[in-house]
Amino acid sequence: MTALQEQPTLAPEMLQKIDAYWRAANYLSVGQIYLCDNPLLKRPLELSDVKHMLLGHWGTTPGQNFIYAHLNRIIKQFDLDMIYVSGPGHGGPSVVANTYLEGSYSEIYPEISHDEAGLRKLFIQFSFPGGIPSHASPECPGSIHEGGELGYSLSHSFGAVFDNPDLIVACVVGDGEAETGPLATAWHSNKFLNPASDGAVLPILHLNGYKIANPTVLARIEHEELDQLLRGYGWTPYFVEGDDPELMHEAMATTLDTCVEKIKSIQHDARQHGNLTRPRWPMIVLKSPKGWTGPKVVDGVPIEGTFHAHQVPLSDPATHPEHLRMLEDWLRSYRPDELFDEAGRLKPELAELAPTGARRMGANPHANGGMLLRDLKMPNYRDYAVDVFPRGVMGIGDTHAMGPFVRDIIKLNAEQQNFRVFGPDETASNGLEAVFDVTSRQWDARTQPDDEFLAPAGRVMEMLSEHQCEGWLEGYLLTGRHGLFNCYEAFIHIVDSMFNQHAKWLKVTNGLPWRHKIASLNYLLASHVWRQDHNGFTHQDPGFIDHVVNKKASVVRVYLPPDTNCMLSVMDHCLRSRHYVNVVIAGKHPAPQWLSMEAAEKHCADGIGIWDWAGNEGEGNGDGGEPDVVMACCGDVPTLETLAAVSILREHLPELKIRVVNVVDLMKLQPHSEHPHGLADPGFDALFTKNKPVIFAFHAYPWLIHRLTYRRTNHENLHVRGYKEEGTITTPFDMTVLNDLDRFHLVMDAIDRLPQTGEKGQALKRQLTAKLAEHRQYICKHGQDMPEVREWRWRD
Amino acid sequence: MTALQEQPTLAPEMLQKIDAYWRAANYLSVGQIYLCDNPLLKRPLELSDVKHMLLGHWGTTPGQNFIYAHLNRIIKQFDLDMIYVSGPGHGGPSVVANTYLEGSYSEIYPEISHDEAGLRKLFIQFSFPGGIPSHASPECPGSIHEGGELGYSLSHSFGAVFDNPDLIVACVVGDGEAETGPLATAWHSNKFLNPASDGAVLPILHLNGYKIANPTVLARIEHEELDQLLRGYGWTPYFVEGDDPELMHEAMATTLDTCVEKIKSIQHDARQHGNLTRPRWPMIVLKSPKGWTGPKVVDGVPIEGTFHAHQVPLSDPATHPEHLRMLEDWLRSYRPDELFDEAGRLKPELAELAPTGARRMGANPHANGGMLLRDLKMPNYRDYAVDVFPRGVMGIGDTHAMGPFVRDIIKLNAEQQNFRVFGPDETASNGLEAVFDVTSRQWDARTQPDDEFLAPAGRVMEMLSEHQCEGWLEGYLLTGRHGLFNCYEAFIHIVDSMFNQHAKWLKVTNGLPWRHKIASLNYLLASHVWRQDHNGFTHQDPGFIDHVVNKKASVVRVYLPPDTNCMLSVMDHCLRSRHYVNVVIAGKHPAPQWLSMEAAEKHCADGIGIWDWAGNEGEGNGDGGEPDVVMACCGDVPTLETLAAVSILREHLPELKIRVVNVVDLMKLQPHSEHPHGLADPGFDALFTKNKPVIFAFHAYPWLIHRLTYRRTNHENLHVRGYKEEGTITTPFDMTVLNDLDRFHLVMDAIDRLPQTGEKGQALKRQLTAKLAEHRQYICKHGQDMPEVREWRWRD
Repeated sequence: MTALQEQPTLAPEMLQKIDAYWRAANYLSVGQIYLCDNPLLKRPLELSDVKHMLLGHWGTTPGQNFIYAHLNRIIKQFDLDMIYVSGPGHGGPSVVANTYLEGSYSEIYPEISHDEAGLRKLFIQFSFPGGIPSHASPECPGSIHEGGELGYSLSHSFGAVFDNPDLIVACVVGDGEAETGPLATAWHSNKFLNPASDGAVLPILHLNGYKIANPTVLARIEHEELDQLLRGYGWTPYFVEGDDPELMHEAMATTLDTCVEKIKSIQHDARQHGNLTRPRWPMIVLKSPKGWTGPKVVDGVPIEGTFHAHQVPLSDPATHPEHLRMLEDWLRSYRPDELFDEAGRLKPELAELAPTGARRMGANPHANGGMLLRDLKMPNYRDYAVDVFPRGVMGIGDTHAMGPFVRDIIKLNAEQQNFRVFGPDETASNGLEAVFDVTSRQWDARTQPDDEFLAPAGRVMEMLSEHQCEGWLEGYLLTGRHGLFNCYEAFIHIVDSMFNQHAKWLKVTNGLPWRHKIASLNYLLASHVWRQDHNGFTHQDPGFIDHVVNKKASVVRVYLPPDTNCMLSVMDHCLRSRHYVNVVIAGKHPAPQWLSMEAAEKHCADGIGIWDWAGNEGEGNGDGGEPDVVMACCGDVPTLETLAAVSILREHLPELKIRVVNVVDLMKLQPHSEHPHGLADPGFDALFTKNKPVIFAFHAYPWLIHRLTYRRTNHENLHVRGYKEEGTITTPFDMTVLNDLDRFHLVMDAIDRLPQTGEKGQALKRQLTAKLAEHRQYICKHGQDMPEVREWRWRD
Repeated sequence: MTALQEQPTLAPEMLQKIDAYWRAANYLSVGQIYLCDNPLLKRPLELSDVKHMLLGHWGTTPGQNFIYAHLNRIIKQFDLDMIYVSGPGHGGPSVVANTYLEGSYSEIYPEISHDEAGLRKLFIQFSFPGGIPSHASPECPGSIHEGGELGYSLSHSFGAVFDNPDLIVACVVGDGEAETGPLATAWHSNKFLNPASDGAVLPILHLNGYKIANPTVLARIEHEELDQLLRGYGWTPYFVEGDDPELMHEAMATTLDTCVEKIKSIQHDARQHGNLTRPRWPMIVLKSPKGWTGPKVVDGVPIEGTFHAHQVPLSDPATHPEHLRMLEDWLRSYRPDELFDEAGRLKPELAELAPTGARRMGANPHANGGMLLRDLKMPNYRDYAVDVFPRGVMGIGDTHAMGPFVRDIIKLNAEQQNFRVFGPDETASNGLEAVFDVTSRQWDARTQPDDEFLAPAGRVMEMLSEHQCEGWLEGYLLTGRHGLFNCYEAFIHIVDSMFNQHAKWLKVTNGLPWRHKIASLNYLLASHVWRQDHNGFTHQDPGFIDHVVNKKASVVRVYLPPDTNCMLSVMDHCLRSRHYVNVVIAGKHPAPQWLSMEAAEKHCADGIGIWDWAGNEGEGNGDGGEPDVVMACCGDVPTLETLAAVSILREHLPELKIRVVNVVDLMKLQPHSEHPHGLADPGFDALFTKNKPVIFAFHAYPWLIHRLTYRRTNHENLHVRGYKEEGTITTPFDMTVLNDLDRFHLVMDAIDRLPQTGEKGQALKRQLTAKLAEHRQYICKHGQDMPEVREWRWRD
């Protein structure tokens, strides 16, 4: 701090100007919440000037306006490349007011002009049908983080500065938000930042003391504890506390100077002197009253500085005439006539306080990341193809085989520095160990000689927090880069809610032409439900895709490649795609390989198809070209079991005409009217027939297939097997047995639907029932699958 | 600490005995991971004594064995009522070994006896098909927390000690686990604990330094930072660090003495002297090597004290003969002959180190909470019935009307102290403000004069972390108490994964007869998707029920009461139920009331039914008693829109015979074979007909209804409307319009499926289309719904 300095940081005139700018933002914020007319108060306020429904959140707004005004000053002073992340749930009025004042808002929305008519529209649209919500929503320029759901501001901010060495993200963290788990662990992000090649995050913990109806924890511990907590998290906190604007302006300006100088000094030290020891980055604790400058007391209830300031402090002017007077007094307390000219334009001496051009936080291209997006340089995925001779040959594990492809993407983009892999301590466990040939885990905490693949700079981000991985990746994507999140399938549910918010962001920005498209969010879910030798029931849940397909068809895609070559083709496609969420589910254990690269490419391009080589319908008679039964599969393990079942059927019931259909792109099953990938009905009927039994082995919960296909012609004959919450620690094959997805059950399912198999079919069923009993005995004795299963191989 | 003490805490003989006990636990742990025979090493170890598949997790185990042995001592010394929570994911071998040693394991599983045969079975069952997993799973006595998924140990522990003043939970927190968001915020639980009426949690942060493949953050920050972090979280940390067993035993014993004395002193101070100032509770940081006492180096790779010790250090004795020798050396390093007698029984001088009876952590009834469960004293919910005259009269909001019922449950159980309400700062916002008539939010941080409803003791637990609310509640339920979690509907997804784990726990314990049933986990999801005036798109997601119904039918229930009286009946049922997860979705805004209490009781008992008074099929001809159309609804807003649609149909097309079906219990729609609540097909057909059009207005995503009903006779004629990810800030009615769920769309849907309505129907459609355009214009002008909609009332 600068306790001994003699000159104030802000000359008196500057302080007055900043205060006026702040008042202007506060005025516009109150106006948005309340007014539908008379925006400049040119005449006394009347009830008809006030909206019918009063919605919005005042509490956090004046504090954020204060911060924004001061950030503007510091951006100009140091010519900073800075964006703003508004962590508290409902800072909408503030970011809208400030981007309007700096001009970036009207550049995008010219009808919200810098005059009285524009002000009126600005006010009306807020929290109004068809208008804008009370968060820093995608509609607001400069936003990469909309609030609403809480807890991800710091993770997003760190994601934004990775590989952006000149960028500073000013991240306002709400003290309510700070109680969430994701935020509580996100403070540790400073151990994963490289001061040389990444930018900086300046957290501003906004301690306004209250949530919706409660004080906040961090506001009610002792000052010393808060200081210890933040230092324990590795930060150097600077406290700015008070409610007297004059004192607060000076304190905030001085502190921001200190913080920016400190950031620059750390970066200089790292970049010029190679000092990569983890710095204790500066941060600010801004303690200011909730609803600062708003009404002090309403109807005898204290408002300013209490949780009562959270939403709309004067809630019912229609039935309380005195509320209308208080509202007018409140608005006039900002002295709008000093701030705006007669036409409604911010006075020039105030307007010049804001940065210009792309330095304005509402116009910074990092906050519209698609503008900066460069294509990934992609190696030719065909170069990583695996051999499939003989067909069914065991591979090393699909994710292991794909590892070199990801490794080479990292290598090819080493100069662009725009691709990272994220995962909660599982990148190696999920089979992507090849990436460590060319890069490390980025890690700026202490190291020891035995450590492996840790370095101050690395393309792999691993922290044991799915929230952090997701939040970092979202921040990275939203600022125009590319990435891959690898995760255990069961635990990706940890970020269900974060996925929701990101998918919603994508949907809304799809409708905003000025928002450039960003790279897709790619999930690779390995360590899936069917292989849990080390774990068991707790690690088994394939339901993330049920969750994903609830979101808009325009933004979600789900792929289940059956083998390595398909996986390579799918992953290449996903990494090139834009503005989707792609979910790819694949195995990491040795598994049979089915398709040559050429066949895989065609299959993945189609997304679904008949595997002629596996069925036998082409071999002879058949019923007008139609098979007797369709054996369908989706997912690597279901494909294996289906092919094994088909082998049994072909051997024991050779007169049956069998068709094998494999699904890579799950969305192919939906009607075309529901998803752009969906097959038209004739195409679907051509694959699944109109009236033949279909035995469908599916990776996840079986009812998802019914949900996707209930409108299809042949739905009535569709019999689906999948995970039904059975299983524990057991062998790979036994997992399928416990869920009736194994080859023996699939054969019996087919026989049950093929009365023409007669006594021969029944005999086979009895044989397979005995086989299942033998299996049970064998695994209980030997702890592994019987050789007949372990050593089974496809024979063309 | 006791640096100046002259006498050691442990007499030499005692130290040796504790060390021997620890060795015994370590021996049994290694045995579980490796052996299938020769459990006492009576002969040289051979390959055939070793399991084929080596699975399990050694890394965390010896440290936890160390802790357990020392906790045994302290329990005996102070006669403590203590249970053990094993936070690291894979402490299975440790808790199994220790409960076996103390005898509680064999009391439940007599076949795992205290002799050589029992040891052999103990070893084989671990991570073996049909055996037990590598976590502290439900099968293990003493466990209320199974690990697997990480991050909830501290929340569970705090939940366990609320209202259990004499209980101490020793909670081992893994340093990997400590990186998760939920754990990072759970440290703050100490601000919500009342030292007088609650028990104590003794966290033991197990700093063994590594996760699966990485060092941990907390092990690689500076000692001073870790100390600051924990003090900042409000704890007083005591460090026990080292790897020399002798020094470590003494240090751990001394530190545990100090901690227990400190806990007792805090409690005495609060209970005898009324000092409720927030204490700085003690905690332990145990820094010990990962895989302590295991192999130091294998194949030239360091193991002990590195992440390589995470799973199975000697992974392939079958192909590495030297691994077999090392394994034998490792096992013999514990000197089993000194620990077990010839028969395989733990030597008496060691066995006596464990506590006896219910003081054993594996036999403590708190860890089998159903044993301690007392029924809630329930007020008569009928006393809270609301008047429904005239039918359709506006209520004050269903959750508001239920508030007094919850309030009185709190009142009636004030003495039992076994019911709490949990919610992330939303209990008032969700309409349960009546509870504050009789209780407060429990809060032990600083207070200020303006605070409302904060007190050191209170029945309402509010922290802005859904993870904390869920974790606390789970801990509270698992130890035999009752509770209610109220939450915004969209944000309950934050705990999707925690719900998964709890539902899995319920499923597994359902199959363990010695595990007594616990109270259900009750969710009240108010502030639902259809009413988001203050918020918007970010707050809209009704998909939690899609997630819930993926879990076993034996443990999940979903209710959507259409009005207050139904809600009272449903909530009474849920709070009395056992071993389920109940999801109740209800509104908090003023809404029409449909059923008298008598009718509501019948309707809720049936779970689904025809609302005769709403339809007109009873009024005359009809087609053999069958209606022309079924208008079905589920959820409060869909019910309102359906009834409004029926009014329109009855007025304009009076010749139509209309049936109204309302669904309260969603599971009624599933086939009886899939869910115990499911209607048999004849019952379903009787309601929905076999061939008439059904227009179904649903609260959540429409395809969920298809998923539940695709096997029903009349599924083909089922047309479902629900939320389809459309909406933003807008009026209540407009939300339904944007998703085609509004009355006008429902009428048009019916007409489209009723060709007999002819030109009259088409004319009505044109009229309603105009109405929708009028609506759009009106809300864009006035910001609220048009009076025709706002003021619409049902007329019998």
